[in-house]
Amino acid sequence: MKVNGVTIDDTYAEAFPVYASRVLITAATTALAETAALVATGFATSVIGCSAEAGIDRYVLPNETPDGRPGVMIMVVHPSKKQVKSNLVERVSECVLTAATTAVFNGLDSEETVPVKIHYFGDGYEYQTSVGGRSVWAIPILEGDFICEETYGVQKGVAGGNFFIYGDSQGSALLAAQAAVDAIKSVEGTITPFPGGIVASGSKVGCPTYSTFMKASTHHRLAPTLREKVPDSYVPEGVKSIYEIVICGLNEEVITEAMKRGMLAATHAAGIMVISAGNYGGELGPFKFHLHEILREYADNE
Amino acid sequence: MKVNGVTIDDTYAEAFPVYASRVLITAATTALAETAALVATGFATSVIGCSAEAGIDRYVLPNETPDGRPGVMIMVVHPSKKQVKSNLVERVSECVLTAATTAVFNGLDSEETVPVKIHYFGDGYEYQTSVGGRSVWAIPILEGDFICEETYGVQKGVAGGNFFIYGDSQGSALLAAQAAVDAIKSVEGTITPFPGGIVASGSKVGCPTYSTFMKASTHHRLAPTLREKVPDSYVPEGVKSIYEIVICGLNEEVITEAMKRGMLAATHAAGIMVISAGNYGGELGPFKFHLHEILREYADNE
Amino acid sequence: MKVNGVTIDDTYAEAFPVYASRVLITAATTALAETAALVATGFATSVIGCSAEAGIDRYVLPNETPDGRPGVMIMVVHPSKKQVKSNLVERVSECVLTAATTAVFNGLDSEETVPVKIHYFGDGYEYQTSVGGRSVWAIPILEGDFICEETYGVQKGVAGGNFFIYGDSQGSALLAAQAAVDAIKSVEGTITPFPGGIVASGSKVGCPTYSTFMKASTHHRLAPTLREKVPDSYVPEGVKSIYEIVICGLNEEVITEAMKRGMLAATHAAGIMVISAGNYGGELGPFKFHLHEILREYADNE
Amino acid sequence: MKVNGVTIDDTYAEAFPVYASRVLITAATTALAETAALVATGFATSVIGCSAEAGIDRYVLPNETPDGRPGVMIMVVHPSKKQVKSNLVERVSECVLTAATTAVFNGLDSEETVPVKIHYFGDGYEYQTSVGGRSVWAIPILEGDFICEETYGVQKGVAGGNFFIYGDSQGSALLAAQAAVDAIKSVEGTITPFPGGIVASGSKVGCPTYSTFMKASTHHRLAPTLREKVPDSYVPEGVKSIYEIVICGLNEEVITEAMKRGMLAATHAAGIMVISAGNYGGELGPFKFHLHEILREYADNE
Repeated sequence: MKVNGVTIDDTYAEAFPVYASRVLITAATTALAETAALVATGFATSVIGCSAEAGIDRYVLPNETPDGRPGVMIMVVHPSKKQVKSNLVERVSECVLTAATTAVFNGLDSEETVPVKIHYFGDGYEYQTSVGGRSVWAIPILEGDFICEETYGVQKGVAGGNFFIYGDSQGSALLAAQAAVDAIKSVEGTITPFPGGIVASGSKVGCPTYSTFMKASTHHRLAPTLREKVPDSYVPEGVKSIYEIVICGLNEEVITEAMKRGMLAATHAAGIMVISAGNYGGELGPFKFHLHEILREYADNE
Repeated sequence: MKVNGVTIDDTYAEAFPVYASRVLITAATTALAETAALVATGFATSVIGCSAEAGIDRYVLPNETPDGRPGVMIMVVHPSKKQVKSNLVERVSECVLTAATTAVFNGLDSEETVPVKIHYFGDGYEYQTSVGGRSVWAIPILEGDFICEETYGVQKGVAGGNFFIYGDSQGSALLAAQAAVDAIKSVEGTITPFPGGIVASGSKVGCPTYSTFMKASTHHRLAPTLREKVPDSYVPEGVKSIYEIVICGLNEEVITEAMKRGMLAATHAAGIMVISAGNYGGELGPFKFHLHEILREYADNE
Repeated sequence: MKVNGVTIDDTYAEAFPVYASRVLITAATTALAETAALVATGFATSVIGCSAEAGIDRYVLPNETPDGRPGVMIMVVHPSKKQVKSNLVERVSECVLTAATTAVFNGLDSEETVPVKIHYFGDGYEYQTSVGGRSVWAIPILEGDFICEETYGVQKGVAGGNFFIYGDSQGSALLAAQAAVDAIKSVEGTITPFPGGIVASGSKVGCPTYSTFMKASTHHRLAPTLREKVPDSYVPEGVKSIYEIVICGLNEEVITEAMKRGMLAATHAAGIMVISAGNYGGELGPFKFHLHEILREYADNE
Repeated sequence: MKVNGVTIDDTYAEAFPVYASRVLITAATTALAETAALVATGFATSVIGCSAEAGIDRYVLPNETPDGRPGVMIMVVHPSKKQVKSNLVERVSECVLTAATTAVFNGLDSEETVPVKIHYFGDGYEYQTSVGGRSVWAIPILEGDFICEETYGVQKGVAGGNFFIYGDSQGSALLAAQAAVDAIKSVEGTITPFPGGIVASGSKVGCPTYSTFMKASTHHRLAPTLREKVPDSYVPEGVKSIYEIVICGLNEEVITEAMKRGMLAATHAAGIMVISAGNYGGELGPFKFHLHEILREYADNE
């Protein structure tokens, strides 16, 4: 199957279940909310080596927030609900409470919630009040009063949605990956947790050469510079560089939509030869996103 | 003492010793290096709740880097040398190896070094080569070959350099704080690890009201909204908002220079009434930075 | 009338008719489209001294553009239709045709159109083709083929929608103005043509002191530093700084909506005392936007 | 000659004389100064269709500016001294006087000066004062007092310094061009006036097909998509995209340095095949910048 002249591999992305929470950070300006959001979701690309996977979900207009100020919605996911909670506590305490002009509100309307008891930082000077119809804590700090909600929604979500973009040069693949991320930003309920939303170094499970101390290693069959050196390379002739886009989201529907928009944007970029996806034969998780199903309606007429 | 009409408190900033390392991240463009640097130094504002304190030290020109590409120098500090090492390993593995077009080089010429053995990710496909006269590893990954050095300098440094900016409104204090951070960026060997370089919520040691489970709490005597409510407030009349600038650096000299440039920039901002600093009477650490000594040559003539 | 505790002056903004066109700039990434858009709409704050008033209307998703790439919609307005046309020709030729990876499409579905015959630059090597169902020209240039439509919609619009934000400090007024601009960005069909969307220096018609060569001059009755020096100052006690937001748009409805969202955002900022607007007693133009009408439903209960 | 494996054409860039002025824009923060600078230097890519060529020269630290605030230095050039003056008057009046928190100072120490009499906008309320040892005007405006110098240095300069980057894909050529611009930013006294510093559409003098109304047209011999269609194409086999970097500067030395740093950065990028330059056989101007002379010391050993 081809879409806009780009070959779509007949494969699927395999994803796994996580717990997901969202925090709405508001601030005096969008730029200030963004600064806090970037720091709070930093060092959170993969649960393999980070305490969580996190990122910016979307920008929220002043007329949509409880305090009438501009906002940025962040999402934090992890397979363990307890770990989601501890990440919320630490990331909000260290990176949002400390950030200029910010306030934080629950960003997820869900059945389950986790407590984020930052208000004890107030040492008894904190007090309860109401903002935009929500019960919040006000903590007197150096810049003024910090406003925060105490409970945050948590629900089951999906991590590891993905696709690969194969380009005829690193520049081609990179521009296509950036366009894909630009497209995915519009899908509410999703994040792309890697730097700039893009992964330069895909992994395989296991590391045969250093199996005693490494659990994962470079996906050598997808490494273009090894194409002539390994007998079982997946890299087609002419492909010089591959980027992966990894997506976490609140449910399968938003992952599907994000993959669709992201892949379509990549097919419109120059120098893209193939779009594929990563899976582990079903061993990683229960969610399968088949590329041909997602893109069928956009297939080129043969 | 006054500088440009702003009262400078006769006090000192108290700082503590850490170990510091620097990593030079290069990329195809400055913007791509910056993206990796921001993610790699995220969630690293304070060692109280983060795994390290980290930030961008400076932007490095293409003609100054081993591979002739634009670069961004990041710094990572922690009281424990072992923790510095583990942070380098994790933050580079998760946030730079995965970032588009990046390479990493040692950024500190020091006697001691720590190993950062990312190359095992290559599963035996990695190989040693030379870039700009440095011995490096090349790891075949999806986008091409990732280049990294294996050993990184580490040396004793200083964390917790600081000063406070007292403004007649939150906006006044914030603009002055941003100008201070802009000024500090020019001092090589320093970082300001909080979001945007600015701290909105200063702490005191201990939390009398919730002493059983909180070790630190809001510095209530510096909270402007508590001025009329606590008997021992430090907040002068007319001060509506205070921001703190926290600085880590390679040595006392660069902290001093950063404090000087930052405080001077703040005195040139509109609506600033006082500049002060935080200390714990010598219990926190051995380094003292006296504001009057640092700014003496700039004092207004009475 | 007060909204969120901020006094809303019982006055109106006076605006004047213009012709308006829109150009959709697409590019390989949103960032590249934005770069072209900013340069193409530069030096276009006021028709008093610039060739047009121009700005970014909105960011357009890849799935909404003719070529499936990310885009930025710009708007160009001027009282003269001929001047709109010449601005489109010059600004697109000099600032978009020359910008990396861009294409341009008509962004306005209107009865009238103006021709923008950039394709002659192709020296006969240009050719007609179709992109996303639109008939376009392809011009071979250094980076590849530049795609452009030939006719662009033009319609009557409104310029000079405005409101003033009075703050207790420059920082307070500025943060509120930035929040207002953040809010207005969401209103499709509007632009805020001044730097950052904000005007620091409002004008009055005429210049009594230098009447022989100046047609406009500082609005001295709104200058906070002249409050004690001129007998007829409009500046209330305690107001230290005022910013004006100027809005151009496709019709009165979008100007009204933009003013509403902008003013509401400003009322939620700290340190704002009054919101007002500028008019010339009906001599400037036929459009009147009464602040009390626009904000009536949000008025505080007395 | 090759540098880092990239062929350097044995040719020269041809440039022409202009007059140049510089304006130092300071503001409460670097970001605010940058906003004003970008708008003031917008729509100024080429004197063929714009009123001037303009851009950001460099960022200026707070301790280097007359008012102790962060700054951005812009440069404006034009073959006519009178046109330089009128551009300063209009661009500063419309785009800096109106921008939040800005002040303007002369940025060029030269023998000749031009007057920029913005202070008449003060309608007699303006007054002379001194900032950082400079005599300035203070004009009461809505945000407070706007500070500006009255005379600005102007000197002879050079426009049209240039080089071409030939890539194996559009993405490769673009990343190299961006790296080149990143490198050139460090050379004080230079600007790259096109969008993002990069030109996508090089011109030739004349337009044979439409000679009656077009004076310039696409440089068809450098258009990669015409390589097979024109008999005299300059495009080597395998080159898919070309970008030009155009540089204006205060003198030949800074242009040479900027070309050197820019070309070197481009040679370190992936997928670059040739670096060349544009000239008109000496008909355009008296300045010649020979690529082999500039890069001789960096030539690869054969």
